[in-house]
Amino acid sequence: MNADHSDAPRVVALAGGVGGARLVDGLDQVLSRDALTIVVNTGDDFLHWGLHISPDLDTVMYTLAGLAPEERGWGIEGDTFRVLEEAERRGADTWFRLGDRDLMTHLLRSSALADGDSLTKLTAKLCRELEVARPILPMSDSPCPTTIVTRSGDEMAFQDWLARARAAPEVQRVEHREAAQPTAQVIEALRSADLVVICPSNPYVSIGPILFLEGVRGILREKPTVGVSPILGGRAVKGPLSSMIAQLDGKPASAQQVAAHYEDFLDGFVVQTGDAFSTPFPVLETNILIQTREDRVGLARALLDFARSLR
Amino acid sequence: MNADHSDAPRVVALAGGVGGARLVDGLDQVLSRDALTIVVNTGDDFLHWGLHISPDLDTVMYTLAGLAPEERGWGIEGDTFRVLEEAERRGADTWFRLGDRDLMTHLLRSSALADGDSLTKLTAKLCRELEVARPILPMSDSPCPTTIVTRSGDEMAFQDWLARARAAPEVQRVEHREAAQPTAQVIEALRSADLVVICPSNPYVSIGPILFLEGVRGILREKPTVGVSPILGGRAVKGPLSSMIAQLDGKPASAQQVAAHYEDFLDGFVVQTGDAFSTPFPVLETNILIQTREDRVGLARALLDFARSLR
Repeated sequence: MNADHSDAPRVVALAGGVGGARLVDGLDQVLSRDALTIVVNTGDDFLHWGLHISPDLDTVMYTLAGLAPEERGWGIEGDTFRVLEEAERRGADTWFRLGDRDLMTHLLRSSALADGDSLTKLTAKLCRELEVARPILPMSDSPCPTTIVTRSGDEMAFQDWLARARAAPEVQRVEHREAAQPTAQVIEALRSADLVVICPSNPYVSIGPILFLEGVRGILREKPTVGVSPILGGRAVKGPLSSMIAQLDGKPASAQQVAAHYEDFLDGFVVQTGDAFSTPFPVLETNILIQTREDRVGLARALLDFARSLR
Repeated sequence: MNADHSDAPRVVALAGGVGGARLVDGLDQVLSRDALTIVVNTGDDFLHWGLHISPDLDTVMYTLAGLAPEERGWGIEGDTFRVLEEAERRGADTWFRLGDRDLMTHLLRSSALADGDSLTKLTAKLCRELEVARPILPMSDSPCPTTIVTRSGDEMAFQDWLARARAAPEVQRVEHREAAQPTAQVIEALRSADLVVICPSNPYVSIGPILFLEGVRGILREKPTVGVSPILGGRAVKGPLSSMIAQLDGKPASAQQVAAHYEDFLDGFVVQTGDAFSTPFPVLETNILIQTREDRVGLARALLDFARSLR
């Protein structure tokens, strides 16, 4: 960890999957120990093989542990699939690709939750075991499943739609659980934040579930908040976001269309060079394609400088 | 399956771990499809990594599926240990050696039990997936944990004592859960049996828990029942039985000492050639060391002929 932004504000980053994890990795490199807390979507959490799986928490955790593959958006680099091969042999569900090392995370999580630990406490324990010092907070300790309602009227848990159905069914709307509660730790982190970063994650299914939690949106309206676009040149870097924007908002995918989801609280937005648009708040154009760590650190620095310029 | 004993009686075999599984494998080879039902001890069942593990059911199932290692008394031949290596890396419990293919059994079992399936139903499903046609019945669908009370007064679940503590603490007594109920299927199988075989398993912790179930001992007293000694020439083939006999009965380990546990219902007993002793019931001396399939089949045939001679 490099503390060259020791004058940096206390930052809370709201993150979903891969894009969020990559920006968080950049922020982790440039912010000092107590200057960053990560709040992660748990709306994708689901049961598989009887195990509690938290895809976004794992992606963030593995990324900060240096275990995430550079290309693939899930699991652990170099993992093997012996258990999955056995599942295949037995005719069990194999649509969710669980690696052998990855599986240990879900076993430890499920067993701790069954023993009465909270997801927050258990996540801290998993992080310690993986030597991730940075606080990673699940958005909630209660189940907050995101439901995809398809154009044909089916209701599917998010991972069923994304991984099992390969995001093929057209989306009519996205539903969050009513009265979902953030944890006390999340509210406390947001209240004491000097800057909230909305990571380049899907606004409907990654950031949306966090914003839907009671009280969160209200705090963001009172805080300096900067977002980063998950759309570059009209396309999503990863995942089904482009088609979701078309299906849910009836508009072509664009950075502007993402920012519109946050306009009640956004103080600044970061987009790919060339993607700027006219807004009531400042927009920073820079490189937001952050596959390599170098690019992640570059974006984190640019974002923090930009946020400082907004004060 | 070889039906050369098509005039064989309907046999119910009571089995624990390795020794039981091996004799059952022999009986499976020589008895026709409907002529054998296996009732398996579940007193060793325990939770590990949050998963429901049934060591004896698995040993019997893997043996009949042709998946059991010839030497090692547990798991699947040629299995890998990727998940276990990750557990080691994370500082999780590794005293119970779970292989990757084996793990899938525990995942499927735990998940089915959580969904409300009975252990009986789930075991039948696992058997189908592993292409084991022979009915394998868990002795009970309720938890019936066997407790080891050590000389120093500690109470340990059986696997904690056997695998974690390596059977080192001296045993003061073995406790079974009061009012443990056999399944209706077990009672029905025993009632319609023409012969009950007590496999060469540990009388305290493998056969004992089955005999302790309400009603079982009473049925055995009315049925032709033949046992096979787990002790050869004063020593157990596998496991801690020899020292348990010394500690619990205060006698040297012998076939006779095992038979004494069954004397209220036994109609015949099979021992290693040279191990015969004076009893109120007939004793057959033959080869009861049954590591190879050939020896298992040989013992099964000898046992069935012996049982027929007792009619």
